[in-house]
Amino acid sequence: MSWNSFGRLFRFTTWGESHGPAIGVVVDGCPPGIALGEDHVQGFLDARRPGTGRNVSPRQEPDRVRILSGVYEGRTTGTPIAMTIENVDARSKDYAGLPPRPGHADAAYDAKYGFRDPRGGGRASARETAMRVAAGAVARLVIPEVTITARVAEIGGEADAGAWDALLDAARGNQDSLGAIIEATAEGVPAGWGAPIYAKLDAELAAACMGINAVKGVEIGEGFAAGRARGRESLAAMQASGIDGGISTGQPIRLRVAFKPTSSIGIGGRHDPCVGIRGAPVVEAMVALVLADQKLLNRGQCG
Amino acid sequence: MSWNSFGRLFRFTTWGESHGPAIGVVVDGCPPGIALGEDHVQGFLDARRPGTGRNVSPRQEPDRVRILSGVYEGRTTGTPIAMTIENVDARSKDYAGLPPRPGHADAAYDAKYGFRDPRGGGRASARETAMRVAAGAVARLVIPEVTITARVAEIGGEADAGAWDALLDAARGNQDSLGAIIEATAEGVPAGWGAPIYAKLDAELAAACMGINAVKGVEIGEGFAAGRARGRESLAAMQASGIDGGISTGQPIRLRVAFKPTSSIGIGGRHDPCVGIRGAPVVEAMVALVLADQKLLNRGQCG
Amino acid sequence: MSWNSFGRLFRFTTWGESHGPAIGVVVDGCPPGIALGEDHVQGFLDARRPGTGRNVSPRQEPDRVRILSGVYEGRTTGTPIAMTIENVDARSKDYAGLPPRPGHADAAYDAKYGFRDPRGGGRASARETAMRVAAGAVARLVIPEVTITARVAEIGGEADAGAWDALLDAARGNQDSLGAIIEATAEGVPAGWGAPIYAKLDAELAAACMGINAVKGVEIGEGFAAGRARGRESLAAMQASGIDGGISTGQPIRLRVAFKPTSSIGIGGRHDPCVGIRGAPVVEAMVALVLADQKLLNRGQCG
Amino acid sequence: MSWNSFGRLFRFTTWGESHGPAIGVVVDGCPPGIALGEDHVQGFLDARRPGTGRNVSPRQEPDRVRILSGVYEGRTTGTPIAMTIENVDARSKDYAGLPPRPGHADAAYDAKYGFRDPRGGGRASARETAMRVAAGAVARLVIPEVTITARVAEIGGEADAGAWDALLDAARGNQDSLGAIIEATAEGVPAGWGAPIYAKLDAELAAACMGINAVKGVEIGEGFAAGRARGRESLAAMQASGIDGGISTGQPIRLRVAFKPTSSIGIGGRHDPCVGIRGAPVVEAMVALVLADQKLLNRGQCG
Repeated sequence: MSWNSFGRLFRFTTWGESHGPAIGVVVDGCPPGIALGEDHVQGFLDARRPGTGRNVSPRQEPDRVRILSGVYEGRTTGTPIAMTIENVDARSKDYAGLPPRPGHADAAYDAKYGFRDPRGGGRASARETAMRVAAGAVARLVIPEVTITARVAEIGGEADAGAWDALLDAARGNQDSLGAIIEATAEGVPAGWGAPIYAKLDAELAAACMGINAVKGVEIGEGFAAGRARGRESLAAMQASGIDGGISTGQPIRLRVAFKPTSSIGIGGRHDPCVGIRGAPVVEAMVALVLADQKLLNRGQCG
Repeated sequence: MSWNSFGRLFRFTTWGESHGPAIGVVVDGCPPGIALGEDHVQGFLDARRPGTGRNVSPRQEPDRVRILSGVYEGRTTGTPIAMTIENVDARSKDYAGLPPRPGHADAAYDAKYGFRDPRGGGRASARETAMRVAAGAVARLVIPEVTITARVAEIGGEADAGAWDALLDAARGNQDSLGAIIEATAEGVPAGWGAPIYAKLDAELAAACMGINAVKGVEIGEGFAAGRARGRESLAAMQASGIDGGISTGQPIRLRVAFKPTSSIGIGGRHDPCVGIRGAPVVEAMVALVLADQKLLNRGQCG
Repeated sequence: MSWNSFGRLFRFTTWGESHGPAIGVVVDGCPPGIALGEDHVQGFLDARRPGTGRNVSPRQEPDRVRILSGVYEGRTTGTPIAMTIENVDARSKDYAGLPPRPGHADAAYDAKYGFRDPRGGGRASARETAMRVAAGAVARLVIPEVTITARVAEIGGEADAGAWDALLDAARGNQDSLGAIIEATAEGVPAGWGAPIYAKLDAELAAACMGINAVKGVEIGEGFAAGRARGRESLAAMQASGIDGGISTGQPIRLRVAFKPTSSIGIGGRHDPCVGIRGAPVVEAMVALVLADQKLLNRGQCG
Repeated sequence: MSWNSFGRLFRFTTWGESHGPAIGVVVDGCPPGIALGEDHVQGFLDARRPGTGRNVSPRQEPDRVRILSGVYEGRTTGTPIAMTIENVDARSKDYAGLPPRPGHADAAYDAKYGFRDPRGGGRASARETAMRVAAGAVARLVIPEVTITARVAEIGGEADAGAWDALLDAARGNQDSLGAIIEATAEGVPAGWGAPIYAKLDAELAAACMGINAVKGVEIGEGFAAGRARGRESLAAMQASGIDGGISTGQPIRLRVAFKPTSSIGIGGRHDPCVGIRGAPVVEAMVALVLADQKLLNRGQCG
């Protein structure tokens, strides 16, 4: 299995199974001289941590990140930044002897590799996303001019946040789960990041977000509503994307990401009723990673 | 501007402005020994050609493709396949002296490059997609086991094809335009193509389709409906994606792509009232290109 | 056969068989706004052209380059620059029915691809290098601060240029051939280009030069003499490389490239008695291509 | 600093400073189902370890490798293989406050990054090569049909091994150092690995070996002797390369690598009088890494 890396100039590689001794990430291409400490990264990890609310999985992991390289006296040196988190709460016995779980990628893995670590979803586990969040925390420091925020926009098709608790309680009671839609905005991106043909900024964002587990759809700006628009006037009323011809315009970049309902409630492991709720920090991280990469690329391309 | 290439092992690079002397593509990585002739490629180009229906731009280009390398006695040799189309109908005078067109990428280009070929949208023109279709025609020969079909599913939000002509006539009368949604299916993809983390098959397809001009959203399988689903039962009723954990399952792969309304009717050049109608062959081509690449990658990874 | 591209940000892809209708190159990633015309490229092509001296192959090709894209009103636009040369002098009948030629790559091709264009060496022909020279001519414009010169340093082990004509005459009389060593210098490279681990500037140069047909060895600076040095003092007396730890120092960069004797004299086609003589412009081009790429990368990495 | 990765389908990324808490490597793209344990990797690390002979640096590191991911019940799963070694003997105080050392890359680093970890050469330390050896140990398992051996061929220009001890003793007594030439052979490589134009097998090997610290020259097969050959007959008498036109022929692949004398004896840290002696296992590793990658690529390209 290749392709555990993402990015071109600002590039990261994740490793580790959710029930092995540790997980980690190597961030390669971070410019030198940037102030970086474990606390900064930890803050973003804490925000995504399971067990911090009643609507997310009760798994309680301290998720203490360690930075093992690439930083000297509190600043990046330009060398690869290796970060790890030990898996202190891995109870692989919960999974021992389980057959491929319906609705999971287990069967697809078996088809491809013929050999699989049966514990906890292996690499496909939501836990792998912790390292994307850690890498994303570094990426944000490369683009201090940009503010990225992602929030839950809908749960189970309901956009009114006041109704979400009841929906989640019902789903939990029925051992069921709910889809979610995450909305993200990146403000402060200057005009000119991206490329016009095959590495369009919107295409890079789409790949980054579609690569998050359980994501089934990505919209940039006007999205599917544009596909259903009658006339340019109706288009103008929609949320603009901040991207034209694959290149940022200087306006806020907006996107929406659809997470399908969790597949595996009630078959042994410990999982969330609505995995999408935990998706927001991961979407934020992926947006930051794409933008940091595009900033460096733009400098290289256009000086 | 880098990144006019797409793919990893089966890789293509397009070049050419819509109003220069020619456009072209170089396909690198095509296996040797495959029967390939200009007629095969021409057939796919003819299917996308403007001027073949009353609802598409009246520009009449013969679009005769020439294969300049990589084929000997009717079979691929494994060397790069260069294909070109001359631009016989380029009337750049139509565009001379035009300011950046509102709703176009012209302003974004100016921000990035500070210098732009003002004729006909340059690289961002729909004409560049002809070369994706040519490359896609080669890609299909690499994956004879797969059948790819794309069709218009909605125009202006209307799924009933019987109503489309009236919608299009009205839009044309009002110098207005309509969005469209294209639905594509790939049947015959064996289980095991793709990768589980950052080069997921769905992420590659999303990047490929979001990189088509005017596309604003991509759904794989259940799509945004999954993001709005209440419960796994409702999920089961939806269109499955044929992809699990980034890897094909052997079931048909389904995706939907949203094209926004054409931006530029009535300001000089000749354009379509609904660019999405011409999107279907381009979506087909991009799906073929991704799948050919993934087939070669899978052989390399898992032998 | 993939990998007909070279470079990361400044990237080019060549195509074409020596006896097909044309050969070409696409240069992707050239910054916008650079003055570029066909005459500039033609000048470098003329310098490498066969038939310009009595010691090189009598094949007389005009090698007129055409620029088909990426230039508007005499300046690059940032879009891909496609260049082609028609093969007006291709006499493929000279090669018809020839078995794999001893000392050529024909047998290796057969092993890999099982199918081969038998005419004139196909892609492996020295003719493919014309397109590297064309791409290199563009690369030079990206690095106006750098002066690159390559010259023949030895023919048949003889460093005294006054003795070369006699050596070459004797070789021609005996239907034999001679090796050559080309020495190249790049002056004006600022300190800081390159990377310290796997994309070291010296490693990139080595790959670029070892990828030229018939090249069997590459030395950077002190080269093999350093491998035979006794003591640092003797090292200090040698030619420094201008590269330390994979990164340019600001001093001139020096390298030497060994071309083996031509393999194919007297078996049908028309070839040079000493292919290395024609190697100097190709080495220059490859050095320019690597340096242009590294300049863009350095801007991206360190801003 | 990007580019701490190497390879295309079989790809590895190293991280870590020689005087930080640990160093490591992530191997991505290893096929699944291969038996792999820490002992296998450790064996290759022990062979390169400092302190195992009187002619190498007295630094005594246990260099115990840990495999943190990618292996389940003793077999690879196809997921990334992360390996680390703790730096138990790092005495960074030896280096505190040292200015850039003459003959080292320190000044080049300063020019590029403007900020540097002053301890022990940072990433450029010979210690980074331990992780290449670890990755190479995995690579060998991907190519069990190939036997790779590297040996010291010359020290200080002396090919007679019986004279080496005296040379080394003298160098040590004079606080001086010696160059070395390493010769490597890969037997069992089937015909057809490699590519004919820009990712030639010889070019990949040249890049891999020129990327080792202190290497200044690489020869494939006939090498510089071919550049000095008079006639094809003399060429035939030389050591063949096992590569034709960038593609393996099925014959043994032979190459020679020149290491310059160690630069830094006697200025604080602890170093070898002849760094080349320790180069053989690193050259072996790099050859294995290139060949594993090419094997996977060839499967992908030609099925």
